[in-house]
Amino acid sequence: MIFFYLWYMDQQHLDDWLRKRRGRRSQMTAGHLFPRLRNGDIEALSTAITLVESTLDMDRHEADELVQLSLPFAENSIRLGITGVPGVGKSTFIESFGQLIAKKGLKVAVLTIDPSSAESGGSILGDKTRMPVLSVHPNVFIRPSAAGQTLGGVARKTRETVFLCEAAGFDVIIIETVGVGQSETLVHSMVDFFLLLMLSGAGDELQGIKRGIMEMADALVITKADGDNITRSELAAREYANAMHLFPPKKSKWTPSAFTCSSMESRNIDKVWSTVESYVLAAKANGWWTENRKIQDKYWLKETLKEMILSEFFDDPEMIHALREEEEKVMQGGASSFTAAENLYKMFKGRSTNK
Amino acid sequence: MIFFYLWYMDQQHLDDWLRKRRGRRSQMTAGHLFPRLRNGDIEALSTAITLVESTLDMDRHEADELVQLSLPFAENSIRLGITGVPGVGKSTFIESFGQLIAKKGLKVAVLTIDPSSAESGGSILGDKTRMPVLSVHPNVFIRPSAAGQTLGGVARKTRETVFLCEAAGFDVIIIETVGVGQSETLVHSMVDFFLLLMLSGAGDELQGIKRGIMEMADALVITKADGDNITRSELAAREYANAMHLFPPKKSKWTPSAFTCSSMESRNIDKVWSTVESYVLAAKANGWWTENRKIQDKYWLKETLKEMILSEFFDDPEMIHALREEEEKVMQGGASSFTAAENLYKMFKGRSTNK
Repeated sequence: MIFFYLWYMDQQHLDDWLRKRRGRRSQMTAGHLFPRLRNGDIEALSTAITLVESTLDMDRHEADELVQLSLPFAENSIRLGITGVPGVGKSTFIESFGQLIAKKGLKVAVLTIDPSSAESGGSILGDKTRMPVLSVHPNVFIRPSAAGQTLGGVARKTRETVFLCEAAGFDVIIIETVGVGQSETLVHSMVDFFLLLMLSGAGDELQGIKRGIMEMADALVITKADGDNITRSELAAREYANAMHLFPPKKSKWTPSAFTCSSMESRNIDKVWSTVESYVLAAKANGWWTENRKIQDKYWLKETLKEMILSEFFDDPEMIHALREEEEKVMQGGASSFTAAENLYKMFKGRSTNK
Repeated sequence: MIFFYLWYMDQQHLDDWLRKRRGRRSQMTAGHLFPRLRNGDIEALSTAITLVESTLDMDRHEADELVQLSLPFAENSIRLGITGVPGVGKSTFIESFGQLIAKKGLKVAVLTIDPSSAESGGSILGDKTRMPVLSVHPNVFIRPSAAGQTLGGVARKTRETVFLCEAAGFDVIIIETVGVGQSETLVHSMVDFFLLLMLSGAGDELQGIKRGIMEMADALVITKADGDNITRSELAAREYANAMHLFPPKKSKWTPSAFTCSSMESRNIDKVWSTVESYVLAAKANGWWTENRKIQDKYWLKETLKEMILSEFFDDPEMIHALREEEEKVMQGGASSFTAAENLYKMFKGRSTNK
């Protein structure tokens, strides 16, 4: 009984231990996983994503190889970013929208970027609760946010997960952001189409949507346009449509539209999808599709490089320990941030030279 | 004539050259500059800031020493962050507000953080045009944004400049942000009091102010409350005051206020200053003042360290050249961002090991 309890509580640690001791490692190599991944094996995909999210050196190595192998299969997917403040109904929308796409025979992956997971270490709400029907659909794969040291790190791992999903044959990759802030910019830098969900009324200045985010949107959809809310939502959609006309034209030459939908009544959910389809056609025709993905690749080259350089410090338990100590000194008034940073940097350089 | 032309066009390069060749270096050491800085010598302050902004190794060394020497003189200053969208009238407000403080016998420094300067290499509008009276006031020092590779780098240099100004005897350091976006968070992380300027009416959702920024504000002031605009401004101030009551209480225990002002008619400008004074009294009394500065120091310890680690790559002309080449490959479709980042990282590691 107690053994079962230990096993149950500590499955993750045991898993790690088993992988190392019992030779299950051999099943977690890129060479072993990739053919299964290409066959659409969901278990292989999950294991591959776990490798991408891992901070262990040996896992990183296999993960890099898996991502490299996956790159050639990115061409036919549609990467879709969805954002909006908490309460806008993102989960309900994706639950309804995802089913619509899946019904067309397309395979849908839903990934999440959650700024809070960078701090707390994971999402609070389980996806089975958030999207009960979608999460058990055979054509659908849902994966919550990776936890990590920085939001940038979390985002980078999500981007690598996109490539894995594409290699596993997923046609539409939805990347959902939770919360408001920097994450929208990060998501925008890895998707083909950026959808902004908004509520009507309720004090726009408190919806946390800044102009920059509206400018990024390829479509703005007012959710919960049902019951008493229809007239107000229609009015809001018209206002936003007018406002968006004032923005400078997009490099994609695409004119964003604003309209209403109701996830509850399944109204206009198909309009969101047909808007995406029109965009894909237009962007592929005028060359923006490929151009945009290359620009994004260039952006991530720099971010990936920075992460590589910084990880030498921030993945080193000894340096992290030293950092905590210097932070404590700063908080006690015993050192300035400059002295502390210099001490840490000297220590870091000393270590790398001796290695 | 041609020599004069060359001299005129290339003054900056010649300056650098002269500094190195003619021994003017000896006048740019921390030992030489600091006593003059402490005497409030503006020329010495300007030179010290130039050293802080420089990317030359030898300048960095003197700059670090100057900042270290300046740290003990930070205690009595007030660091004031001012933000608001373009068009809100920041320059006019600071022109009027700065004169009011200077008239009280206080020395005022105005620094700018401009996200665009990270890209374009400097502010477009000269400060003499923006603040004609303030810029020639004997008690006032105005310095535009440092240009730099990243917004974070620009902000870090601004923070170091704050310490230099404090050592030079400035009582109030105003840090103004230009534009909307990340810079507010950066400014908030280096000031004691954060002032948000807003306009009445004109579509709040387009003012680019997200909830996060309103939550940071210690006071929200509606500008241009004059002429036909008074009633509307008063109404907006009341609405914002109500909205701000819904925010969670601040760690400082300070309750932010919202009111109107007119820089043109010099109305309520003194109220802004008396609000700042009340805040200083309250925050010093409950310990938040010191606590907050230590928290900020802790934040900047990590940022400074990251910049130090990354600068090994990004300050190296050879690595920058290699980065440009790999970026070009990515844009031509000849490499993925992952391969490119890995190539660059290997090259970088090879270099540091051979050094």
